[in-house]
Amino acid sequence: MSPTTPQPVDLLIEARWVVPVEPHGVVLEDHAVAVAGDRIVALLPIADARAAYAPRERVELGEHALIPGLVNAHTHNPMTLLRGLADDLPLMVWLQQHIWPAEAKVIGPEFVRDGVELAVAEMIRGGTTCANENYFFPDAIGATYRKLGFRAVVGLPVIEFPTAWAKSQDEYFERAAEVHDVFRGDALVGTAFAPHAPYTVSDESFGRIRVLADQLDIPVHLHLHETAHEVEEEKKKSGLRPFQRLQKLGLVNDRLIAVHMTQLTDGEIAACAEAGVSVVHCPESNLKLASGFCPAERLRRAGVNLAIGTDGCASNNDLDMFGELRTAALLAKAVAQDAAAFDAAFALRAATLDGARALGLDARIGSIEPGKQADLAAVRLSDLETQPLYHVASQLAYATGRHQVSDVWIAGRRKLAARELVDLDVEAVLAKARAWRERIAAG
Amino acid sequence: MSPTTPQPVDLLIEARWVVPVEPHGVVLEDHAVAVAGDRIVALLPIADARAAYAPRERVELGEHALIPGLVNAHTHNPMTLLRGLADDLPLMVWLQQHIWPAEAKVIGPEFVRDGVELAVAEMIRGGTTCANENYFFPDAIGATYRKLGFRAVVGLPVIEFPTAWAKSQDEYFERAAEVHDVFRGDALVGTAFAPHAPYTVSDESFGRIRVLADQLDIPVHLHLHETAHEVEEEKKKSGLRPFQRLQKLGLVNDRLIAVHMTQLTDGEIAACAEAGVSVVHCPESNLKLASGFCPAERLRRAGVNLAIGTDGCASNNDLDMFGELRTAALLAKAVAQDAAAFDAAFALRAATLDGARALGLDARIGSIEPGKQADLAAVRLSDLETQPLYHVASQLAYATGRHQVSDVWIAGRRKLAARELVDLDVEAVLAKARAWRERIAAG
Repeated sequence: MSPTTPQPVDLLIEARWVVPVEPHGVVLEDHAVAVAGDRIVALLPIADARAAYAPRERVELGEHALIPGLVNAHTHNPMTLLRGLADDLPLMVWLQQHIWPAEAKVIGPEFVRDGVELAVAEMIRGGTTCANENYFFPDAIGATYRKLGFRAVVGLPVIEFPTAWAKSQDEYFERAAEVHDVFRGDALVGTAFAPHAPYTVSDESFGRIRVLADQLDIPVHLHLHETAHEVEEEKKKSGLRPFQRLQKLGLVNDRLIAVHMTQLTDGEIAACAEAGVSVVHCPESNLKLASGFCPAERLRRAGVNLAIGTDGCASNNDLDMFGELRTAALLAKAVAQDAAAFDAAFALRAATLDGARALGLDARIGSIEPGKQADLAAVRLSDLETQPLYHVASQLAYATGRHQVSDVWIAGRRKLAARELVDLDVEAVLAKARAWRERIAAG
Repeated sequence: MSPTTPQPVDLLIEARWVVPVEPHGVVLEDHAVAVAGDRIVALLPIADARAAYAPRERVELGEHALIPGLVNAHTHNPMTLLRGLADDLPLMVWLQQHIWPAEAKVIGPEFVRDGVELAVAEMIRGGTTCANENYFFPDAIGATYRKLGFRAVVGLPVIEFPTAWAKSQDEYFERAAEVHDVFRGDALVGTAFAPHAPYTVSDESFGRIRVLADQLDIPVHLHLHETAHEVEEEKKKSGLRPFQRLQKLGLVNDRLIAVHMTQLTDGEIAACAEAGVSVVHCPESNLKLASGFCPAERLRRAGVNLAIGTDGCASNNDLDMFGELRTAALLAKAVAQDAAAFDAAFALRAATLDGARALGLDARIGSIEPGKQADLAAVRLSDLETQPLYHVASQLAYATGRHQVSDVWIAGRRKLAARELVDLDVEAVLAKARAWRERIAAG
């Protein structure tokens, strides 16, 4: 090889291991990722990288694994301020006597902004770099993500009764169009329609959503088949299972992000695969609310795109995607009665690239490939809790705690450096969280 | 109150919250624990404690919860050296093609000593202060726990074939008697019989164990009804379910520590309650090996004493009792189809006092009460991942990571101080773990 002038880049990250996620199951040793601006320009052996690139900044990670930033494919991040407010209660008591009254007291732009700030701090410290958000006041939510430099898809709520966000169906759609317009073309923040659930959204609204989602080219983010009760109630009302009703309305297509899906027939699984529906599995929320068991391994085998989400902090009670992908992998084996089901490499893909695919972002994020956005997380594996180390993917899926995330980048910008949040005032975020707690607990 | 001379004590620990576990469900605010020697002498408000005691050492914990040290009621700690060696495999392939060949290469006193050292470091950093151990070479295991000042009940193995530990049934019993003798009256290390499982232990050996366990006054620690397959095979052989066979042999009594128990009839649950059997639930191992679902909430409602264990690191892959109690609470709700099942306070009790009860140690450890051993863990709740804070028990069960354990005491001796292991050379422990890895991975 003849000597050439090293190419200037902004950042070179060197690590003992790189898990690119694509190609599937690969772990590269002693590799480096070169970043220019917001993009990955190369992934190559450290020695080659040092010869080929002249970086403005070099980060030598040592005994770490560099992975794509985790994608939390379903969350209600303003509810981080309600973490642990009401646990160990039946679903309807929890909602009607605790969560809804608490929200009624506080909901508004300030509440969602402060909740999202706390959530972003928690997500970054846990290696998450993208959230699929679903809550009221998406304007304030989206503005907060943009301000904090955090990647998100913000749900545009539609629900069949008046809320603090909108008073009529027309107003939900007007405000959705406005919010979509604000973030059109934004580098970090996108939008999706977020009809709440089949039991709270009319055929007419679903019809408008189908047309508008096509026109605006955005996903439809929907709670679906969360419980057996939901399915039974819909059958009593319309004679159809909720999934069948959505098929009739034309919403079962590759825009659909179907969250929970604990009740599924073989035919529905096949229909999801054929139509390109993405399913978001929220195992810890499903367990905690006793919602049921999502057939994650059957979905995987059928070729359905499967993403992972934490759900909101009122029903989890954290935004820990390492914990969530681990629970997903463990639970899938037991539900499938097969210890070989839903393996470690698949769990990591579900929490990254397949999450990105659900959000329509897989061309931009979800794996470490040249041309993609530099959304990256470094995980320290030298801790005694992850020693000895035989297999990197196993260790990440089954033994790693989120506190082992040392460094995080979003679109090439450092967000976490040796466990320190770079551009967030943690004390201010915590002071606001405590102030909201006082207001809410006083009720 | 007339002024009195403060009583000298060795240690006064002050915390924003103390969770004594007994009485059940109580959280005390701004309380202190006074310790003299290895014992708790008082639990009282901080202001009163400062007036009443003159401590040699005072620890002011701030926004922490002080809890009883966690009791890991089923583990194979030497196998920590096999963490993640072979994952995502069917049970028999995992055992026969990976775990057993690896063990055959390395098993012996040095392997178990180094594995237990690594495990003790991990357990202390995670707030665990007592382990119910089950592995070969209990002499070397017990000596290691004693040397490290860690509380343990060490299993005396009995299995119906020759191993590196013993060549004949008589030798298993001879060595058991020897090891029991070594640790008789030890302040920290006790023993239990550890017949492997009904399918690997004969009626004759079970008969000897029943008699000797009574004579030596020690528990019987047994894998039982781990899978449906185990139950079916026993029925083919003896016409009985394994539990029935043990009933016939007189082993279903209050000495029995029955581990796993994923297959249980209502009659068997009632029999456990009546006989005072303790069940150890290992939810993550059961999920990962697709063993089945322990009916934890049915056991709780029937009044069966329920403890929690991690199982060994080859099937979990950690010794994280915070993670395990959380998984136990979440999974129990889903299995019982009741979001109010197995609440946070019960999960904390299962991981402490009920674990101690299973081991026959509930008079000495498992709760923060005057007269009990000072086995304590302090958990930092000021981290943003556990804010805002509405309910301490919920936060500990559903949001706390084990890395938030800041300080640990066993029998009044400090083992962890502000996250630093006090009397363990971590680098030496890790160097040995890495050396074992080289030998095992080379195979």
